[in-house]
Amino acid sequence: MSEKTKKPQKLKARLPRGFVDREAHDIRAVNEMVEKIRAVYERYGFDPVETPLFEYTDALGKFLPDSDRPNEGVFSLQDDDEQWMSLRYDLTAPLARHVAENFNEIQLPYRTYRAGYVFRNEKPGPGRFRQFMQFDADTVGAPGVQADAEMCMMMADTLEALGIKRGDYVIRVNNRKVLDGVMEAIGLGGDENAARRLNVLRAIDKLDKFGPEGVKLLLGAGRKDESGDFTKGAGLDETQIGKVLFFVGIKDYAESAADLAALVAGTTKGEEGVEELNMIGALVAGAGYDASRIKIDPSVVRGLEYYTGPVYEAELTFDVTNEKGEKVVFGSVGGGGRYDGLVSRFMGQPVPATGFSIGVSRLMTALKNLGKLGADEVIAPVLVTVMDGDVEAMGRYQRFTQALRAEGIRAEIYQGNWKKFGNQLKYADRRGSPIAIIQGGDERTQGAVQIKDLIEGKRLSGAITDNTEWREARVAQVVVPEAELVAKVKEMLAAQKADRDRAKNN
Amino acid sequence: MSEKTKKPQKLKARLPRGFVDREAHDIRAVNEMVEKIRAVYERYGFDPVETPLFEYTDALGKFLPDSDRPNEGVFSLQDDDEQWMSLRYDLTAPLARHVAENFNEIQLPYRTYRAGYVFRNEKPGPGRFRQFMQFDADTVGAPGVQADAEMCMMMADTLEALGIKRGDYVIRVNNRKVLDGVMEAIGLGGDENAARRLNVLRAIDKLDKFGPEGVKLLLGAGRKDESGDFTKGAGLDETQIGKVLFFVGIKDYAESAADLAALVAGTTKGEEGVEELNMIGALVAGAGYDASRIKIDPSVVRGLEYYTGPVYEAELTFDVTNEKGEKVVFGSVGGGGRYDGLVSRFMGQPVPATGFSIGVSRLMTALKNLGKLGADEVIAPVLVTVMDGDVEAMGRYQRFTQALRAEGIRAEIYQGNWKKFGNQLKYADRRGSPIAIIQGGDERTQGAVQIKDLIEGKRLSGAITDNTEWREARVAQVVVPEAELVAKVKEMLAAQKADRDRAKNN
Repeated sequence: MSEKTKKPQKLKARLPRGFVDREAHDIRAVNEMVEKIRAVYERYGFDPVETPLFEYTDALGKFLPDSDRPNEGVFSLQDDDEQWMSLRYDLTAPLARHVAENFNEIQLPYRTYRAGYVFRNEKPGPGRFRQFMQFDADTVGAPGVQADAEMCMMMADTLEALGIKRGDYVIRVNNRKVLDGVMEAIGLGGDENAARRLNVLRAIDKLDKFGPEGVKLLLGAGRKDESGDFTKGAGLDETQIGKVLFFVGIKDYAESAADLAALVAGTTKGEEGVEELNMIGALVAGAGYDASRIKIDPSVVRGLEYYTGPVYEAELTFDVTNEKGEKVVFGSVGGGGRYDGLVSRFMGQPVPATGFSIGVSRLMTALKNLGKLGADEVIAPVLVTVMDGDVEAMGRYQRFTQALRAEGIRAEIYQGNWKKFGNQLKYADRRGSPIAIIQGGDERTQGAVQIKDLIEGKRLSGAITDNTEWREARVAQVVVPEAELVAKVKEMLAAQKADRDRAKNN
Repeated sequence: MSEKTKKPQKLKARLPRGFVDREAHDIRAVNEMVEKIRAVYERYGFDPVETPLFEYTDALGKFLPDSDRPNEGVFSLQDDDEQWMSLRYDLTAPLARHVAENFNEIQLPYRTYRAGYVFRNEKPGPGRFRQFMQFDADTVGAPGVQADAEMCMMMADTLEALGIKRGDYVIRVNNRKVLDGVMEAIGLGGDENAARRLNVLRAIDKLDKFGPEGVKLLLGAGRKDESGDFTKGAGLDETQIGKVLFFVGIKDYAESAADLAALVAGTTKGEEGVEELNMIGALVAGAGYDASRIKIDPSVVRGLEYYTGPVYEAELTFDVTNEKGEKVVFGSVGGGGRYDGLVSRFMGQPVPATGFSIGVSRLMTALKNLGKLGADEVIAPVLVTVMDGDVEAMGRYQRFTQALRAEGIRAEIYQGNWKKFGNQLKYADRRGSPIAIIQGGDERTQGAVQIKDLIEGKRLSGAITDNTEWREARVAQVVVPEAELVAKVKEMLAAQKADRDRAKNN
């Protein structure tokens, strides 16, 4: 208390930008989602593994989000031995470190999943947070594309387990090797063209943003935007541009497969890449996943720079209204691919791996849009009100509360200042309590309690047509002997549930 | 690949000190624990709320673990606007910030729980990590000790829900106000004696470590340890020391309550504190928690410096063997108390609150000791082996796998280099797979599959006496038509489960 006089300035309660608190409804929704995703991954034979939030910065290394600024984008600090540590910015780099560190104990193929927070030290914006949750699955030590095919099937099964209907999602698959083949076919193979290839990659990465016309300019001489700013292009000629645009413009793979194979024929990796795409296509089709669920689609360019083989992306195809009031396709909720180089940087030997990451918050937004995470099914606690504060009365209220809890009913005794009874009922109302228990002096002498049904039939009746009978059966409050308290509360809760079910079905 | 030549030095895969990876078994055990704890807190009417891992350092402020070095002990870094941010070191300070920041929207009393990682920037040691999990529950806006009594009951119920028997735990309760009364009674009341009170607190905090004799020295002139180092004492005289030691030495509260009341009679807070202890005792006894479960115990001194009213601690009373091979009582797994000043530092108005924290990892260690988190109940996946790599064969293996998964059976196709079949069975063995599915050329032409039971009766037979009959019923491998694959696998898994159950009951 004496501190007060020393601290005239009141401390401001606020969070750093880009961080948010999460409320009960969202926490329960995420838990429910995570459980459903986990069940699918477990069924596929994956086991959980978890790494801590910190890694040495060099272990994250060049796999930072922005390779031009290797030490930006992450939260870093120096340990007391002067070594730099960073908070993980994804769940893949820590997994690579884990595998390399425990390589002798780990049985390959190593099939694991993990959900956890990742951190980006970036400018926050609407829907862009500096802490968010990812849910990953990876197979390390799996050289064949059957592992990639399995990942695609698992993504499809996961979305369906979350209640997303067929037709509302598609898993798109592409392959970095085919792109490399196309590059080689247009004369951009070899180490000496690495910089030019990067420019081509960056140009096609803008396909969503600028469309084929814009990308054409970026692949050629360059592009001037509305403000007059000029972006220098990759400097390809017409023929080269045509081949690149043919590749990323393929809509129907079956139709274009022969032309694509011809385009990359004779290149180092291109033919292998096409074969891999065909194999994935055959495997998923054979397992019953048609092209409306898993689609070979060379227009997927996201991540092609990072991955070394197949890349895959989960897209939700239904429309939502964006902040500007426009209808847009919801879009990507996760993706991944093959990253054969990530573990080997620690190892000096190649370790093939493939995996994907789901953006949990983004997926939750999608499920909310679809009404799949609608009502919070958790019922608020029954409130045992306090009419008298002596130890005998308190003990009695406490016993009522414990008796309800013992039967699995959420219950609480009012813990605020009990002397204003109005506050207790206001609390019950704002809390959404279904029932209040009241025992004043009169009831006390009779050994009875009053039970108040706080969910009026009225509130639900709007949604129900033929409700006279059941509404009549409901009584707003009753007085029962103490011994019957629990049974009566159970009965009222069951009646309330029946009302909710009725309202839902109307 | 071209990177290799540029990077002759291989990166070392290692974690910063004090951080660990967690494996499947521990993750599943923690999830199971957290679910059981959550169920109890929900039944008590608490709702989840979560804060991010970062807070502004000033919001953690003086509530840092070590008040002498306010900015040490936590991981801190500067945001791009130069403000210092820290990773939370407990879940209480962030809750206080959350309540203050959302004070107008929050309905008091505010009853919430949260599980999450906290971080300590300290020297790690055996069993001491720099990232660990806490599970907290708090009631904010509850002035009465009925809220503290409820916390004690909830801790007891939580330990029992985790399988800890009565007699193996005790919740001990003390009160800071009684200590303040004792201080006043020995002439150490008032602001001017704050420093001396702190010395007394630090002395009695050593009760576990040095025993009453050591504390007596620390309360008096001082104490010399084995190495000859001298710690200056609090400078109390014999009478003062006697009164302090009487207070922290009380073993049977009922017996000593009258003497304690007499000792603090007439002090500002002492009588109130004794009344509060009595009220808590009456409430928990009335609700059926006897003194073997919740015990008023003035020897609890941990946290007395921090809290403002009742303090409570959950102790496991069974013996374990420590690193030195000595039998010791397991000890504390969590605790808490009333902290009426924590929220108010943001608010300029008092906000009474009470809550506790469970150390999840420590509690997990305890449950392992008790055999309550024994066998991992998750069965490893059935392995579908690969005998042929062409697309048709792969598609068939994939279909087998998906058919098993569709029935809820964990299954995986071998994802490593399939050409060495021995590796596949070695993988199944190390993975603990219960069954392997094999289809070579012969079976393939017959449309059949071989199903291999990998859990031999032998391994279990040691534990079983009358097992001739059921062991005979088990066949190590069978060949069935493809159409019967799933049914046969189910049958074998059921037989294995029956074996396990039999072994468990013997």
